[in-house]
Amino acid sequence: MKTYRDILKWGNKEEISIDEGTRRVIQDKLGYDDSYFETKHLAGDEEVSLSNSNQIATEIQKKLTDIVGQENISTQADVLVAHAYGKSYPELLKLRKGIVNTPPDMVIYPRTEEEIIQIVEICHQQKIAITPYGGQSSVTGGVETLKGGISLDMTRYFNKVLNVNENNCTATVQAGMFGPAYEAYLNEYGDKYTCGHFPQSFEYSTVGGWVAAKGAGQASTAYGKIEDMVLSLKAITPKGVIETKTYPASAQGWDIHPLFIGSEGSLGIITQITLKIRKYRPQNTKHASFIFKDFKTAVEAMRTTMQAGVGRPHMFRISDPEETDVAFKTKQFDGTLADKFLNMKGYKTEKRCLMFVAVEGDKAYTSQVVSSVKKINKKFGGFSLGSKPTKKWLEQRYSSAYMREPMMDLAVMTDTLETAVMWDDLLNLWEAVRSYLKSKEKTVVMIHISHVYENGANLYFTFLSPMKKGKELEEFKEYHKGLINTIIAHKGSLSHHHGVGKALAPWMEKELGTESLELMRAIKKHLDPHGIMNPGTLGL
Amino acid sequence: MKTYRDILKWGNKEEISIDEGTRRVIQDKLGYDDSYFETKHLAGDEEVSLSNSNQIATEIQKKLTDIVGQENISTQADVLVAHAYGKSYPELLKLRKGIVNTPPDMVIYPRTEEEIIQIVEICHQQKIAITPYGGQSSVTGGVETLKGGISLDMTRYFNKVLNVNENNCTATVQAGMFGPAYEAYLNEYGDKYTCGHFPQSFEYSTVGGWVAAKGAGQASTAYGKIEDMVLSLKAITPKGVIETKTYPASAQGWDIHPLFIGSEGSLGIITQITLKIRKYRPQNTKHASFIFKDFKTAVEAMRTTMQAGVGRPHMFRISDPEETDVAFKTKQFDGTLADKFLNMKGYKTEKRCLMFVAVEGDKAYTSQVVSSVKKINKKFGGFSLGSKPTKKWLEQRYSSAYMREPMMDLAVMTDTLETAVMWDDLLNLWEAVRSYLKSKEKTVVMIHISHVYENGANLYFTFLSPMKKGKELEEFKEYHKGLINTIIAHKGSLSHHHGVGKALAPWMEKELGTESLELMRAIKKHLDPHGIMNPGTLGL
Repeated sequence: MKTYRDILKWGNKEEISIDEGTRRVIQDKLGYDDSYFETKHLAGDEEVSLSNSNQIATEIQKKLTDIVGQENISTQADVLVAHAYGKSYPELLKLRKGIVNTPPDMVIYPRTEEEIIQIVEICHQQKIAITPYGGQSSVTGGVETLKGGISLDMTRYFNKVLNVNENNCTATVQAGMFGPAYEAYLNEYGDKYTCGHFPQSFEYSTVGGWVAAKGAGQASTAYGKIEDMVLSLKAITPKGVIETKTYPASAQGWDIHPLFIGSEGSLGIITQITLKIRKYRPQNTKHASFIFKDFKTAVEAMRTTMQAGVGRPHMFRISDPEETDVAFKTKQFDGTLADKFLNMKGYKTEKRCLMFVAVEGDKAYTSQVVSSVKKINKKFGGFSLGSKPTKKWLEQRYSSAYMREPMMDLAVMTDTLETAVMWDDLLNLWEAVRSYLKSKEKTVVMIHISHVYENGANLYFTFLSPMKKGKELEEFKEYHKGLINTIIAHKGSLSHHHGVGKALAPWMEKELGTESLELMRAIKKHLDPHGIMNPGTLGL
Repeated sequence: MKTYRDILKWGNKEEISIDEGTRRVIQDKLGYDDSYFETKHLAGDEEVSLSNSNQIATEIQKKLTDIVGQENISTQADVLVAHAYGKSYPELLKLRKGIVNTPPDMVIYPRTEEEIIQIVEICHQQKIAITPYGGQSSVTGGVETLKGGISLDMTRYFNKVLNVNENNCTATVQAGMFGPAYEAYLNEYGDKYTCGHFPQSFEYSTVGGWVAAKGAGQASTAYGKIEDMVLSLKAITPKGVIETKTYPASAQGWDIHPLFIGSEGSLGIITQITLKIRKYRPQNTKHASFIFKDFKTAVEAMRTTMQAGVGRPHMFRISDPEETDVAFKTKQFDGTLADKFLNMKGYKTEKRCLMFVAVEGDKAYTSQVVSSVKKINKKFGGFSLGSKPTKKWLEQRYSSAYMREPMMDLAVMTDTLETAVMWDDLLNLWEAVRSYLKSKEKTVVMIHISHVYENGANLYFTFLSPMKKGKELEEFKEYHKGLINTIIAHKGSLSHHHGVGKALAPWMEKELGTESLELMRAIKKHLDPHGIMNPGTLGL
């Protein structure tokens, strides 16, 4: 039998530990002495156990088993618990505390679309909840099975590329395929392609999850968010199967497929998606990095590039002063000769900001874009640090998510939130969120921009703070609530790419307005009249 | 009192006549002798008259008049007739024949959103149809008042820019503002901007119309279709007012504003829109033109550019061999020394194809893109013709629409249709449509690509053919039906940017599938329970 800690793991990945640089930051900023590093807070070493009984009637269980076969159904406690939660901080806390109030009654691994149609039909008739399940990396409670029922795990069978069309530059892929498998397939196919979508969760997220949660990858500034890549899709809803046609564009009423992008399982189960793919030419990619004297100037330089008509970087990031400082500290850069040189030049500790740039494509294009960015940055006092810092960052770009477990072992509350905001409101919002997050003592607040548009950008917030032991959940709930309210009050969107799930659902009416939310509910009502699809998500 | 011919006019524009080159083409290809040019077929010189009586009850008329004032309401026959139709070939024919079966009962020019809310409320209660009306340039029956009722003319008062935000690069504009006024405003504003949206109808279309019909402009290949420019909008529906927030991107469920893009007035009245705007730097624009040995090679070169990661032209066009020939003939280029030179070089009459390229933005970018396109074209045997042909084409880019009146005077059936198609299916579709259109004797068929994507392109069909005098409407209906069926059978979309209106509505179920159309109907039902909004449009 597995322990709760086993379930905290990312797939088969070995747990990682805190490196020396990060330990230094935690000790300095959170005031942790060596004793903190000796024991694990809420280690979750207990064996998984569930007291809930299966709420699905025996004859229905039998029907479902007949559809997919005994081997593709599970009611084992550790499997149910592994499907009860995603990866948000409160979900991880609950696992560590052994709190699993609403596990799914069954986990089903469907083999075919025909089987899903049958399962949905039965659940629709019986009013049994279905929550589609992919890589489990949701940080908004997206896969939490609030009403039990069935967790429909798409990863066992719906994990293939169905078609690559090199002329069209498209791939049709099943929803349960993981990012690395999809990308590896494309990298090797024909003239070699890339999916162009690399969210932080890349290694443990699926194509269907990207679409359902409306994700964004680290190359989104040029390739777009996932909604800019999807050309068509197929979804199985309680009302029937919706399959849209694949066109480069059209004008035949409003499009149907975008309704499923960001639907987070609330309308039906996405089974396959046709996406844009791009030529994979890593040898042409150009990297650059810069340091600016302050955040405002860095943001102005970034905005200028985005609106200048010079093409655009694929990856385009700015770390705010505190994130820059932490990055320097963890890399043990502070106090070096280079650090002294930068300070002397006016790039002062606690003010300066790092910018990372990577451009993909044809050689002539990547050279022109990097050179245009350099020219613009120079005007804003940006100092070039060469290509290395960006390359180094890219090497470890997925790893920070895996730091959450050792952090939580140290009783560090750590979470990330994000928003999108127009340029005009960005600095205000940044300041307001910093000041809110800093209202909690000894909090490290790291903020960056990582998805950039002509008209605005996202802001991504990471915070570390000592847990209030014994009251971890209550403490987070209140802090989180204040943070969201601060974001909304300062014209940030409820989410830029994490999605809404159950965690942000209570804000949907305030955010969208009653008329828009009612329209969303009418759409859901039409496709899912009994409300069985991922109940609670999006506040529908 | 006005004549039907007055109503055929484009605004206050003088009628144009057939130039020498075009006359030559018509004489050669349609076999017209000089006698055809002496009289006008179906001139429409009769005075407008209507026998219909107003179907709206007197007390309701009074209520409506009280809202907007007597001066902002009209029941005058010529005004009603001018609001009964758009600019599709059968609509123009009907006007010439004096057939106006379902004119609006009243034309109303609302002054404020508050007035529109009141009008919609009354019409909702009384089940009176409302058709929003902008520039009247629809070629799919979009503004045809199939059930009479009210034509809501947005151009008199809703014609202002409400806000330009230079930091955000956005403008908020009222729906009834015409293209040229909007563009002129932006060209003069602050650091100087462009709307980047130049449909063929630009001079006689409104921003609201662009959004409602999901249009595309001639710079769409880089700036996108209108759906790629809209950040948020406000719409008044029978169910209430929907106003969406302005973000650069977000992930809070599926977006609401895209439901109104392409809604063609079927859900409500769009009153204002916030759009992306771009820096206006015409001095940096680079033009280029090329000739290719055949259509297939030209298309391959174009596809290669779009997928190469070299940036992209704003305007990117290919004329197929017949369109190229007609262009050369109307410009009296055929038979010149230059023509002989091209033929000698292997760019043969009836095979060769013109390509036009224009790139906007920063100088470094426009130079790099044009040079990359040249390099690619060279590989495909494209021969550079310099910048002049593209510049000349741009000078007269809106004029071909105005040729329809003198053409129809000559008893020439002339219409345009368009579709979007993936690269893989493009040549097949092109051949099938050509062969279908050529099934009619003495037909000139000109086809071009004018909106280009990584994954495919549009095809735009223009045809000229002698009218079957006395049976013009029946003849067109049958020919049009066969054409749409041919497009759909060969994997083209029902429309790329003209929209669906009433003309293409009968194909919507076949095109979208029953499940998707029912979903659209459910959305309409929620917002417009009595079906008063532009009845018949989109087949809803």
